[in-house]
Amino acid sequence: MARVSQAHLDARRRQILDGAALCFARNGFHATSMQDVLKEVDLSAGAVYRYFSGKEELIEAIATEVLGAIRDVYERAARESPPPMPDELIARTLAHMMRERPAVTDGGEWLFPRLMIQAWTETLRNDALSALLDEGFAKVTAAWTKVVSRYQETGMMRDDVAPDAVARTLMAVVQGFGVQYALFGTFSPEALRAGLRGLLSMREAADGTGNESVEKG
Amino acid sequence: MARVSQAHLDARRRQILDGAALCFARNGFHATSMQDVLKEVDLSAGAVYRYFSGKEELIEAIATEVLGAIRDVYERAARESPPPMPDELIARTLAHMMRERPAVTDGGEWLFPRLMIQAWTETLRNDALSALLDEGFAKVTAAWTKVVSRYQETGMMRDDVAPDAVARTLMAVVQGFGVQYALFGTFSPEALRAGLRGLLSMREAADGTGNESVEKG
Repeated sequence: MARVSQAHLDARRRQILDGAALCFARNGFHATSMQDVLKEVDLSAGAVYRYFSGKEELIEAIATEVLGAIRDVYERAARESPPPMPDELIARTLAHMMRERPAVTDGGEWLFPRLMIQAWTETLRNDALSALLDEGFAKVTAAWTKVVSRYQETGMMRDDVAPDAVARTLMAVVQGFGVQYALFGTFSPEALRAGLRGLLSMREAADGTGNESVEKG
Repeated sequence: MARVSQAHLDARRRQILDGAALCFARNGFHATSMQDVLKEVDLSAGAVYRYFSGKEELIEAIATEVLGAIRDVYERAARESPPPMPDELIARTLAHMMRERPAVTDGGEWLFPRLMIQAWTETLRNDALSALLDEGFAKVTAAWTKVVSRYQETGMMRDDVAPDAVARTLMAVVQGFGVQYALFGTFSPEALRAGLRGLLSMREAADGTGNESVEKG
């Protein structure tokens, strides 16, 4: 039997995960069978089951990978000085997600958001996946919270609000972007960035006369 | 046969919609049968089918009602001078949703977010619901866009970003809040409001030394 290199094993694992993610994104978890995954990746059952015991393990591996990748973006950002503004950081997150998982595209369409919203629904009835998402989400929140604390330490943000509340709000923006992208297909990363820039420029009306100018940029 | 008042008909319709919403939120659309809905509302099939032909019509009526209610909040806000800040307006939206559909609670837990994320997944495979959500979402976006235009006209926001991009970003915040509420149960409306206040207070670091103070707020 030929010796198999680690690089080959890793590439094979990658191929299976990407194929499974594509099947799940297209048709959902329940309507996807392991047969569908085998067909998509063009491998034998023996080759696939060597890596993953079934759909559950595939779903969990995909979720773990995605949450880990997002967390890395924020961990790195927390070490920058000054930390990147939220619009820049969220643009990086989306670019990273689009770049790192190119196989979750179908005919040029980025299907990851479809996968994401289906994973949420699955989570409502799958305790193992729920626990995994819960833990992964807590870690992403912790990483984002470090960035927000840096905003507050450097005077970029008022410091009388809980940093993890801001972190959750920023994660909500990314999640909601995914919803609109998957459902309506009319929200681009560039539009999201512009929308955030608008929000970040806001100030309260001083007197309601509408004559105050915006000086921030 | 006794004459039935319009108020009675309306109350009955309300009772059926609330019971159906509760069933869908708990168990999802596919796992809920019309028998489950009849049992939940404690009415005969004849009484229920007089109002709704089946699950599809129930789902569509619920989605139409929710989107209409949200739109009303923003339409009213666009007529205020100055328009309410986003944190205030989003807090109003959530309060309105919690107040208007009290029946979508179970043992004190607000189940509407569960219903929402399941409706998104359903939309991926249900063209009629997809078209309905698409149209309803476009109307909510248009109403939010009016508020954002008012922010720009009154100098509360920079005016070089497309108002509908800001509107979509704010809607993304509400959608992502729903995701976290349904999945992790650890994000309160108050925390969301604090998170938004933090974001709205932001300014770019002037020089990266971290010595600039925040004066807004």
